[in-house]
Amino acid sequence: MSTENLDISRRKLLGTVGAAGAAGLALGAAGGAATYATAAGPAGTALATVGSTAVPFRGTHQAGILQPLQARGHLVAFDLAPGAGRKEATALMRRWSAVAERLMAGEPAGDGDTGVALDAGPSSLTVTFGFGASFFDRTGLVARRPAELDPLPAFSSDRLDARRSGGDLWVQIGADDALVAFHALRAVQKEAGAAAKVRWQMNGFNRSPGATAQPMTARNLMGQVDGTRNPKPSEPDFQERVFVPAGGDQPWMAGGSYAVVRRIRMLLDDWEKLPLERQERVIGRRKSDGAPLTGGGETTEIDLDRTGPDGKLVVPDNAHARISAPEQNGGAAMLRRPFSFHDGIGTDGTPDAGLLFIAWQADPRRGFVPVQRKLDRGDALSPFIRHEASGLFAVPGGPGEGEYVGQRLLEA
Amino acid sequence: MSTENLDISRRKLLGTVGAAGAAGLALGAAGGAATYATAAGPAGTALATVGSTAVPFRGTHQAGILQPLQARGHLVAFDLAPGAGRKEATALMRRWSAVAERLMAGEPAGDGDTGVALDAGPSSLTVTFGFGASFFDRTGLVARRPAELDPLPAFSSDRLDARRSGGDLWVQIGADDALVAFHALRAVQKEAGAAAKVRWQMNGFNRSPGATAQPMTARNLMGQVDGTRNPKPSEPDFQERVFVPAGGDQPWMAGGSYAVVRRIRMLLDDWEKLPLERQERVIGRRKSDGAPLTGGGETTEIDLDRTGPDGKLVVPDNAHARISAPEQNGGAAMLRRPFSFHDGIGTDGTPDAGLLFIAWQADPRRGFVPVQRKLDRGDALSPFIRHEASGLFAVPGGPGEGEYVGQRLLEA
Repeated sequence: MSTENLDISRRKLLGTVGAAGAAGLALGAAGGAATYATAAGPAGTALATVGSTAVPFRGTHQAGILQPLQARGHLVAFDLAPGAGRKEATALMRRWSAVAERLMAGEPAGDGDTGVALDAGPSSLTVTFGFGASFFDRTGLVARRPAELDPLPAFSSDRLDARRSGGDLWVQIGADDALVAFHALRAVQKEAGAAAKVRWQMNGFNRSPGATAQPMTARNLMGQVDGTRNPKPSEPDFQERVFVPAGGDQPWMAGGSYAVVRRIRMLLDDWEKLPLERQERVIGRRKSDGAPLTGGGETTEIDLDRTGPDGKLVVPDNAHARISAPEQNGGAAMLRRPFSFHDGIGTDGTPDAGLLFIAWQADPRRGFVPVQRKLDRGDALSPFIRHEASGLFAVPGGPGEGEYVGQRLLEA
Repeated sequence: MSTENLDISRRKLLGTVGAAGAAGLALGAAGGAATYATAAGPAGTALATVGSTAVPFRGTHQAGILQPLQARGHLVAFDLAPGAGRKEATALMRRWSAVAERLMAGEPAGDGDTGVALDAGPSSLTVTFGFGASFFDRTGLVARRPAELDPLPAFSSDRLDARRSGGDLWVQIGADDALVAFHALRAVQKEAGAAAKVRWQMNGFNRSPGATAQPMTARNLMGQVDGTRNPKPSEPDFQERVFVPAGGDQPWMAGGSYAVVRRIRMLLDDWEKLPLERQERVIGRRKSDGAPLTGGGETTEIDLDRTGPDGKLVVPDNAHARISAPEQNGGAAMLRRPFSFHDGIGTDGTPDAGLLFIAWQADPRRGFVPVQRKLDRGDALSPFIRHEASGLFAVPGGPGEGEYVGQRLLEA
């Protein structure tokens, strides 16, 4: 009786949502790159798709890369249990894929569903799976380990905690409702069963849909507009920057992407003491609207050569926006899709808050690594941030009909 | 230039929101007890007030008691700094009141605003202030300490961490956007200045507006509908249960309420192993819709005497819903307005998750205490929860025009 009850209740909700729900599903199916513009509409129009928007599980790419930032996120890394190998990993990816598909459609996880997501729609839930370098050792698949998973170089500003870094497997969960996201996290942990143990887990957040009057670039917890220079799907080189093409060394990664994950603590007590003018010179952009200090609006190109009346560069030599600009890095670019985090007060008495930086790229050696190398040498922002954890994961392409995530790796 | 810029940007947003914003503000002013029904409307209608809804700072009661559950919350307790007394506390309450009023109206905190809430509207932000028993010693106001602040009795199931319990001062922050809530938390911490130090701080969440197709009673992280028997403002004894009447021993508390705050850890690994039928017998209600096991819908009265074909009570003797029912506790009732919490994995490897239980009542000795005494003796839910922190705070009435919160205590 019990599971059936849950099923009925969930279906009832989806039925009730009716037209709005169908619209949400259609939207997702159209490519999964819906923006807040579509989901929220201009100020004054309906936001009724918050709960009912579903993102399709199957497609060329896994969900959770091209979707708009979600209000709530969980990152969780697992290590395969002692004795578990390729067989157990294969069964686990089958189970995880099945539960992710159900949850993303707004269905219960299965028998023993916790009920936490009942009443709510799928709320743009995405569940994304990746493999760390150690996964290939554990499963005897070293020959299929991409060179892109070679360890990231050490950076002088790193203060990495190994216990919160790395991992055989990585799962990114995002949703526009905190209970829907938590429900998915518990379901993923449950399905891990005896095959894998949680290595680390982090929580994050972004704005709630509808909190701003129109779609805006996100702000981080320093108050800065963050993400202006992200590559856009409309740009001609977007696909080749973000996704692995077919025909490469590791065919199983076609349509996939590499995720660099960094827990970046913000030293907010220090940052907030800086006067606004100094903060803006550190970044090279105005805080109010993200426009370059050389003028214009948020998306205006930075005039890197412009000098002020004092003969000095308007955007200083070490400004974050200058150093990280793609044109200063041989075109290196990555799709940053972060969550903010705030875990209360740290052991040192300062806020344990900052950015769960997640960057997507076809090759970290032409994305994160060169940019971070340059930032590491002379970013004015460095004194105000601290990289506390790091991960690098191969995120395979999305599953086709009847496939599970990673099947092309595990069964080839 | 800098602060002005922030001002302009914020006003621009509020201007842009236009009609929706004005509607939100009017709604707030009408009593501050707007429900999701008003804010969200039935499925398919506008949710455009998520960001633009403002809750009035001034009124008979402080904001944050009668408002609908917000998507994000921060609880923070402060102790007055060594050497700080009534004078410093008075100045602090003036500063806190001023900043709370500005933020709740969607304005910047003042000079040095961090900018984190820019772009977003007030998003139903509320900032609520309370005084712990120790506050009265520190400020030489022992004669004005209400008997209602006498220490809560010890309960056998308590596992309280003193470092996360109590405090001279307590601030509850809630908002429907996580960045707006974080912005307010940092502004409150900054205004504490040298007068008070953070004692503890906790983060919580509830559903996002629009995640359900219509307004629903909340679910907790056990998946249970939670809050069905909450007193309703439409009930004749609501005011006397929740708010302190005029003419009492402590005139400064007229219109105020007492907040019992408990960090209730849920032992989810154990709970989730119970089959649904056993979970439902622990609670006495169906998980799917919160209806009593004796039938009907969520709001149907429990038939406490009904027996099944086996001659046993349908709602067991030790079911949580039976033991906590007001009719089983001499009418004792409190307005529960919680946030869920999830702080990742605990040191014991289990989820550090549960409920930031916040109960509002005119007198905890006729609210929380008798109910908790009874639950402590024989609640079937007890093995699955653990009270880890506790606080009891006198929350004075809302400030009138020109007043600051607590003025009637500090200046009488």
